[in-house]
Amino acid sequence: MLIARVVGSAVATIKDEKLNGTKLLVVREANARGEPTGKPLVAIDTVDAGVGDVVLIASGSSARQTSLTKDRPVDAVIMALLDSLEVDGEITFRKS
Amino acid sequence: MLIARVVGSAVATIKDEKLNGTKLLVVREANARGEPTGKPLVAIDTVDAGVGDVVLIASGSSARQTSLTKDRPVDAVIMALLDSLEVDGEITFRKS
Amino acid sequence: MLIARVVGSAVATIKDEKLNGTKLLVVREANARGEPTGKPLVAIDTVDAGVGDVVLIASGSSARQTSLTKDRPVDAVIMALLDSLEVDGEITFRKS
Amino acid sequence: MLIARVVGSAVATIKDEKLNGTKLLVVREANARGEPTGKPLVAIDTVDAGVGDVVLIASGSSARQTSLTKDRPVDAVIMALLDSLEVDGEITFRKS
Amino acid sequence: MLIARVVGSAVATIKDEKLNGTKLLVVREANARGEPTGKPLVAIDTVDAGVGDVVLIASGSSARQTSLTKDRPVDAVIMALLDSLEVDGEITFRKS
Repeated sequence: MLIARVVGSAVATIKDEKLNGTKLLVVREANARGEPTGKPLVAIDTVDAGVGDVVLIASGSSARQTSLTKDRPVDAVIMALLDSLEVDGEITFRKS
Repeated sequence: MLIARVVGSAVATIKDEKLNGTKLLVVREANARGEPTGKPLVAIDTVDAGVGDVVLIASGSSARQTSLTKDRPVDAVIMALLDSLEVDGEITFRKS
Repeated sequence: MLIARVVGSAVATIKDEKLNGTKLLVVREANARGEPTGKPLVAIDTVDAGVGDVVLIASGSSARQTSLTKDRPVDAVIMALLDSLEVDGEITFRKS
Repeated sequence: MLIARVVGSAVATIKDEKLNGTKLLVVREANARGEPTGKPLVAIDTVDAGVGDVVLIASGSSARQTSLTKDRPVDAVIMALLDSLEVDGEITFRKS
Repeated sequence: MLIARVVGSAVATIKDEKLNGTKLLVVREANARGEPTGKPLVAIDTVDAGVGDVVLIASGSSARQTSLTKDRPVDAVIMALLDSLEVDGEITFRKS
């Protein structure tokens, strides 16, 4: 799964009907410190994430395995809110 | 999902029969301001998008989860028309 | 879908039996003018394409949605032969 | 499959319920010597791997084919612990 | 499918039980001359390939469509042994 930071949100009135009721967040891939390094992507939120949260993103068909995203035309889902990351014996990120 | 801008269209007379009745649009991945940054790709339209629109693209098997694209040999679908994007507390894109 | 140009062909006598009867073409991703820009890949042909043709490629599980490729171990299929591409109001490619 | 080195771990209290009971490891893609070269990603462990181990990662829908990850919203799984790698006739990695 | 050259092999004693009986080869993506250009990856062999062979690799869910790899947690399979490649009217690779 990608480590990503939530940086914003997207609004789309006209969309496939299977997207109704989903929350679209803008995320950017992040490093082990939770700092955004990637380009903006849009993912469906399933864990009530907000701007600034560091999260995990599942992509592709795996993005449709949550109860909220099943059978929907979405290829990226936020399926976990990270509390902390430890790399090489160091806590590189901790949710404040 | 990728943020993309619709930049044109494609015509293909000879194609897999499962593609009949689909509209092929040329899109380019875009930044949070909706400005195209990526190379041209072709996606199936499901939201009546037009040139200049900023849209979301679902890729891979997820592209086959709309009623229009089910079981078709397509790996990219436009499944939402963006009204606006907000990043870091700023409205970076608004549909004009 | 990727825009690609057919640049050649591949021969493989020893292969998974599910590949029997398929035509293997070498393609390179192309720009909106149909000029090859990418590295050589191999795709299954379903539209009787030939060298020089500009085509669309569906990848991943979507490559198995044509009647010819169903259940086969292939991840790239040529599913449309492009007649033309229009980008930013200009015809950038037209089949000659 | 990607060759990767386990470099750490991730903790996530709030997550999709289908992730309960899984162990989240931080991995980085590695070269044939097992030296990390890629960015940090998070994968589900199925082989009791630990920091420093060199492993194989299966991605996408294939990540859901282990008994532990079936139907879960995960797109990367550690499904093998490497003992050794041989490239061009040389043992490039051996588990110590 | 990717064009790749087999450059070595991998040994993994501890692995998901669904991997038992599979042969793990190290491959590198190759150009149309069969020369390796990419980083080392691991793929399941289904065509009795050996070091030096130039092969085709199917990735993702397509890697699970051979009788040998069905339902296994693998995302890359060698499903054809290339005899030759022809690009722009020239034989760029021929198996020796």
